[in-house]
Amino acid sequence: MPSSFTTNMRLKFPILAISLEILIIILFAVFVAYKDSTHDDHKQASNDTSTISSVRFSQLYPMFQDVHVMIFIGFGFLMTFLKRYGFSSVGINMLLAALGLQWGILVQGFWHLHHGKIEIDILKMINADFSTATVLISFGAVLGKTSPVQLLIMTILEITVFAMNEHLVVEVLQAKDVGASMIIHAFGAYFGLAVARILYRPGLKNGHDNEGSVYHSDLFAMIGTIFLWMFWPSFNSAIADEGEDQYRAVVNTYFSLAACVVAAYAISSFVEHKGKLDMVHIQNATLAGGVAVGTCADMNIGPFGAMLIGLVAGIISTVGFKFLTPILASKLCIQDTCGVHNLHGMPGILGGIAGIVAVAMGAKVGGSYLMQAAALTSSVSIAIVGGTITGFILRLPFWGLPPDQNCYDDSIYWEVPEEEEENEEGLAHGEHSNNKAEV
Amino acid sequence: MPSSFTTNMRLKFPILAISLEILIIILFAVFVAYKDSTHDDHKQASNDTSTISSVRFSQLYPMFQDVHVMIFIGFGFLMTFLKRYGFSSVGINMLLAALGLQWGILVQGFWHLHHGKIEIDILKMINADFSTATVLISFGAVLGKTSPVQLLIMTILEITVFAMNEHLVVEVLQAKDVGASMIIHAFGAYFGLAVARILYRPGLKNGHDNEGSVYHSDLFAMIGTIFLWMFWPSFNSAIADEGEDQYRAVVNTYFSLAACVVAAYAISSFVEHKGKLDMVHIQNATLAGGVAVGTCADMNIGPFGAMLIGLVAGIISTVGFKFLTPILASKLCIQDTCGVHNLHGMPGILGGIAGIVAVAMGAKVGGSYLMQAAALTSSVSIAIVGGTITGFILRLPFWGLPPDQNCYDDSIYWEVPEEEEENEEGLAHGEHSNNKAEV
Amino acid sequence: MPSSFTTNMRLKFPILAISLEILIIILFAVFVAYKDSTHDDHKQASNDTSTISSVRFSQLYPMFQDVHVMIFIGFGFLMTFLKRYGFSSVGINMLLAALGLQWGILVQGFWHLHHGKIEIDILKMINADFSTATVLISFGAVLGKTSPVQLLIMTILEITVFAMNEHLVVEVLQAKDVGASMIIHAFGAYFGLAVARILYRPGLKNGHDNEGSVYHSDLFAMIGTIFLWMFWPSFNSAIADEGEDQYRAVVNTYFSLAACVVAAYAISSFVEHKGKLDMVHIQNATLAGGVAVGTCADMNIGPFGAMLIGLVAGIISTVGFKFLTPILASKLCIQDTCGVHNLHGMPGILGGIAGIVAVAMGAKVGGSYLMQAAALTSSVSIAIVGGTITGFILRLPFWGLPPDQNCYDDSIYWEVPEEEEENEEGLAHGEHSNNKAEV
Repeated sequence: MPSSFTTNMRLKFPILAISLEILIIILFAVFVAYKDSTHDDHKQASNDTSTISSVRFSQLYPMFQDVHVMIFIGFGFLMTFLKRYGFSSVGINMLLAALGLQWGILVQGFWHLHHGKIEIDILKMINADFSTATVLISFGAVLGKTSPVQLLIMTILEITVFAMNEHLVVEVLQAKDVGASMIIHAFGAYFGLAVARILYRPGLKNGHDNEGSVYHSDLFAMIGTIFLWMFWPSFNSAIADEGEDQYRAVVNTYFSLAACVVAAYAISSFVEHKGKLDMVHIQNATLAGGVAVGTCADMNIGPFGAMLIGLVAGIISTVGFKFLTPILASKLCIQDTCGVHNLHGMPGILGGIAGIVAVAMGAKVGGSYLMQAAALTSSVSIAIVGGTITGFILRLPFWGLPPDQNCYDDSIYWEVPEEEEENEEGLAHGEHSNNKAEV
Repeated sequence: MPSSFTTNMRLKFPILAISLEILIIILFAVFVAYKDSTHDDHKQASNDTSTISSVRFSQLYPMFQDVHVMIFIGFGFLMTFLKRYGFSSVGINMLLAALGLQWGILVQGFWHLHHGKIEIDILKMINADFSTATVLISFGAVLGKTSPVQLLIMTILEITVFAMNEHLVVEVLQAKDVGASMIIHAFGAYFGLAVARILYRPGLKNGHDNEGSVYHSDLFAMIGTIFLWMFWPSFNSAIADEGEDQYRAVVNTYFSLAACVVAAYAISSFVEHKGKLDMVHIQNATLAGGVAVGTCADMNIGPFGAMLIGLVAGIISTVGFKFLTPILASKLCIQDTCGVHNLHGMPGILGGIAGIVAVAMGAKVGGSYLMQAAALTSSVSIAIVGGTITGFILRLPFWGLPPDQNCYDDSIYWEVPEEEEENEEGLAHGEHSNNKAEV
Repeated sequence: MPSSFTTNMRLKFPILAISLEILIIILFAVFVAYKDSTHDDHKQASNDTSTISSVRFSQLYPMFQDVHVMIFIGFGFLMTFLKRYGFSSVGINMLLAALGLQWGILVQGFWHLHHGKIEIDILKMINADFSTATVLISFGAVLGKTSPVQLLIMTILEITVFAMNEHLVVEVLQAKDVGASMIIHAFGAYFGLAVARILYRPGLKNGHDNEGSVYHSDLFAMIGTIFLWMFWPSFNSAIADEGEDQYRAVVNTYFSLAACVVAAYAISSFVEHKGKLDMVHIQNATLAGGVAVGTCADMNIGPFGAMLIGLVAGIISTVGFKFLTPILASKLCIQDTCGVHNLHGMPGILGGIAGIVAVAMGAKVGGSYLMQAAALTSSVSIAIVGGTITGFILRLPFWGLPPDQNCYDDSIYWEVPEEEEENEEGLAHGEHSNNKAEV
C-alpha cells in the first residue's frame, strides 16, 4: 500500500486543525474588534447612528440566520444523498464552514481595515458565511474522494483566492453581483471542478458501489434541498441595499425559484425512463433558479423576467445532470460527485450572462455591461487557475487521500455504528478491507 | 390493463407542467409588477411611506419565512410517514406549492388590481403561500392514490375556488378569519375529502401493504410536525394588523398549541392499547390547537381562552383519528390517507364556531357573529361543491391514475434506488409488478 | 414482576397530564393577561410607547422563534441518536417543553406580578422557553430510563426550582448570566445528574443492547445538533439589552461556536482509535462553545476572548465524553445517557468561571465577581439538592418506571410500526419480552 494511502488521521488532522485555529485566534486578537460606535465616521452627522445601526442589525439578523441555515443545514444535508457518506457530508460540511467563516472574516476584512482593525458587523458575518459557500460548493465536486486534511487545506486556499476575486469584481471592476451568481456559484463550481480534474481517479471510471443513494438518504438530502430553496431569497438579498433593492431581490428570487421547480420536474420526467422523476434532479435542479437569478436579483427585471431566468436554469440544470455529467467524467476526466457543474456552474454562468444583458438594458443604475462581462470572466478564470494549483497541492502524497475502494465511505474517517446482526457479516468484511487500507 | 392505468408520465406530465408555467409567466408579464412607490396613493400624505413600507417588509419577512417553512418543510415532511411514499410526499408537495404560489398571486390578485396591475408586496407573498396550504391539505386526503398530473389540475382548480371563497368571506361578508381556520383549514379539508369521496377505491377497503409507516419514516414525519407546530404563531399572525392584533395572534396561538400538545398526548395514551402513545396522533393532533385558534387568534379571548380551544381541539382530533376515520372510510366511502378531517376539518369547524362565539361575546370590534356563521357555512359548502366537481374532473380516464396495487408506492412515478443485496430479490419482484402496471 | 414495573400508562399518564393542564388553565384564567398598553407605567412619559413596544416585539420575535427551534427541534432531535428511542426523544421532548413553557410562565411570572397579573410579552415567552431547557437537559441524563409520568413530575418540580434559583441569581445577587451558562446549563445538568444518581440502575452497569446508534439515527441527531449550533447566538442574546449588548452577545457566540467546532473535531480525532471522528463528540462537543460563552456573551471580552472560551470548551467537552463519562458511571454510579455533564455541566461551569474572571477584569459595567461566584455556587448547589429530592420522589414505586431490559426502547410506551418481514421474527420476540414486562 503506497504511503499516499496512509489514511490514519490521528496526528496530522488534529495538529493541522488546532494549529490553524490558534493562528486564527492570534490574528483575531491583533486585527478583529467589535464595531465601536465612538469611532463611527458618520457619528458626527447624527446622534442617531447607534440606533439606526441597531435597527439595521435587527433587520438583517433574521436574514443572516437564514443564510446560516443554508450553509450548515442546506449544503450539509444536500450532500447526504450518498448511502454511506452522510456523516462526512453533514459533519465535514460543518467543520469546513466553521473554519472557513473565521478565515473569511480575516481575508475579506484585510481589504477593509478601519483604524487598522476589522470591525465586526452583521454584514461582515453574512459575508463570512458567504465565503464558506464557495468551499462547500467545491466540496460537492470532490465529495467522497478527499480526506479531511485535504479539505482543511482547500478551505484556507479557496477562501483566500475567493476574497481576492471578490475584491477585484466588487471594488475594482464595480460589477454588480448581489446574489453572487458569479463570485460564489460559478467560482465555487469551477474551482472545485479544477480540483476534481487534478485529483482524477481512473479507478473510479466505472463507478463505485457506494456512489449511490438509498431511500432514506435521499430523504435526508431533501432536508438540505428545501432549506436551501426556501431561504434563497435571503441569500440573494442579504447584502442588497436597504429598501427597493432588497425588496426586489427577495421578490425576484422567490419567483425565479418557483418557476425553476416546475421546469425541473417537467424536464426530469421528460428525460427519464418512462417519465419517472429522478431524485438527483429534484434535489439539485430545483435550486438552479436561485443561483441564476443571483446577479440580477436586485435589478429591475420584472417578476416575469426572474421567472424566465428560473425556467431556463431549471431546464439546463436538469439536462446537464442527465447528459453532461457523464460526458465530463468520460471525456474531460472530471468526476463531479454532486454535479456542482449543473447546479452552480452553468446556472452561475447563466446568471452572469443575464446580468450582462440586464445591465446593458438599463436594469441597474450605475452598472456597466462591460464590467459585468469582465467580472464573469475573472470569476471563472481565477477559479480554474486557483483550483488547478490547489489540486496539485492536494495531490501531494501525505494528506491522507483515501484509496479508490474506500471512496464514498464514512468508515474510513469516522467511527460508524455496527448495524443489525443480519448485515454484520457483510460489514465486517467491508471493515476488513478498510483496515487493510489504513496502514 | 385499462387505459386509465397508463401511468407513464413521460409526455402528459411535462407538457402540462411546462404549459402551465409558460401561461403563468405570460400572465405575470401582463399583470404583475413590483410595488412602485411612485404610484403609492398614500405617498402624497407623507414622504416617509417608502421607509415605513420598508420597515414593514423587514418586520414581516421573518414571518413570511416561517410560513414558507411550514408550507415546504412542514406539510412536506408531515406526509413522509408512509413507508414507501416519502419522495412523493416531500417532492410533490414542493411541486404543488411552487406552482400554487404563482397561481395564487394571480387569482388572489385579480380582486385587488392597482392601476391594472397586481403589485407584489410581502403580504401578497404570504397570501400566495397561504393559498397553497389549501391544496396541500387536500393532497393529504388523497395522498398515495393520485398521479402528479391529477394533482397539478387539482392545484389550479382548488386555488381558484379558494380565491373566490376568500374574497366572499373577507371582502363581501367582512368576516374575521385571521388564522384561516375556515377559509384554509376547513376549506382545504372538505375540498380534499370531497375529492377523495369521488375517487373512492373499493379495492383498498381492506387497507394496503404500503399504507403504514416504518420507524424512520415516522421520525421524518416528526420534522414536519414540529416545524408546523413551532411556526404556527407566525401563520396565525402574519396578516394580522400590526401591533396589538398581531401580538395577540402570536400569544394566543402559542398557548393554544401548548395546551393542545398535552391534551393530544393524554388522549392518545388513554384510547390506545395499554396506554401506549400513537405516532399518528402525536404527528397530527398536536397541531389541531393551531388550526382551531385561527379564527379568533387576534381576538381578545384571553390566553386561557386560547388554551381551552387548544385543549378541546387536541381531544377531538385524537378521538377523530381513533374512532372517526375508520367510520368515514367504511360508511361514507371517504378514504382520508392523512386524516385531514381530524387535523384540519373538525378543528377548522371548531375554530369557526369559536369565532362565532367570540365575536358574539364582543371579543372583536367590528365583527358580526352572523357574518362569521355565514363565512363558516360558505367555506365548507363551497369546498364540498368545488371538491366534488374537481373529483369528477380528476376521475377522467387519462390523467395517469395509479392502479390499486401501486398506491402508496413512490416507484410508480419516481426512480427509486435499489436497496441492499439481501432485499433485492423482493424488490425486483415488486418492480416487476410495477412494470406490468405501466402500460 | 414487581409493581414498580407496571408500565401500563393507560390511566396514570392521561389523568396526570390532563389534571396538570386543567390546573394550569385555571391559574392562567386567574393570573395571566395580555400586556395592556393602557396600564403601561411608561405611557405617561411618551405616547409612542405602544409603537416602541411593537417594534421591540418585531425585533425579538425572530430570536424567539430561533430559541423555539432550539427547544423543539434542537433538543428533540439531538437525543434521537439512540437506535430505538427516537419517538421518545423527539416526542417526549415536545411534551415536556409544551407543558414546561406553560408552567414556566407561571412560576417565573409570580416574581413579577403587575397589578396582580402576569402580563405576557415576548420576553416572558422567551424566558418560558428557556425554563424548559433545564428540563430537557436533565431529560438527557435520564433518557431511556424513565417513564413519561416520571418526566411530567420532573418537569413541574425542576422548573419550579429553576425559577427560584433564577430569581436568586438575577434579582437578589444581581449576577450577570445573559446566556445562562449557570442558571440553565449547569443547573439543568447537575439537576439531571443528581436524579440519575438516585435512579442508578446496577443492572445496566455493563451497558444495554439498545444503548447505541445506527447510521441513520446519528444523522437524525445531527439535525438537532446543527439547529442548536446555528441558533445559539439567538439563545445567548435574546434577553440581552438592546443595542451593544445584544450585538456583542451575537458576535461572541458566533465566534466561540466556530472555534469550538474546530477544537472538537481535532480532539475527537486525536483521542479516537486510528484518528477517526466519533459522532458522539461531533453531535455534542461542537455545542460546548455556546454553553461556555453564555455568561460573558454580552461582555466586552473581544471576539478572540470568545474564541478562546470556545476552544477550551470544545476540548474539555470532547475529553469528558471520552474519559470522564465512563468514570462517572463506574465510580460515581451516575449513568448519564447523553453525556449532559460534558455538554452542559462542565462547559456551564467553565462559563460561570469565565464570567467571574471577565467581571473581575472589568468586562461588564456594574458586575461584581463575588456575586458571579455566588451565582455559580448557588446554581450548582440548588440543582444538586433539587435533583436529589426530585430523584427520591421519582423513585416512588408507582410512576411506571421501565424495567432494565426495556430501557432505551420506544416500544414500551409507544406503538411502534412492525418492520419488514425479515426482521419480524426477531421483533416479535422482543415484543414478547415487552409484553411480559407490562403487567
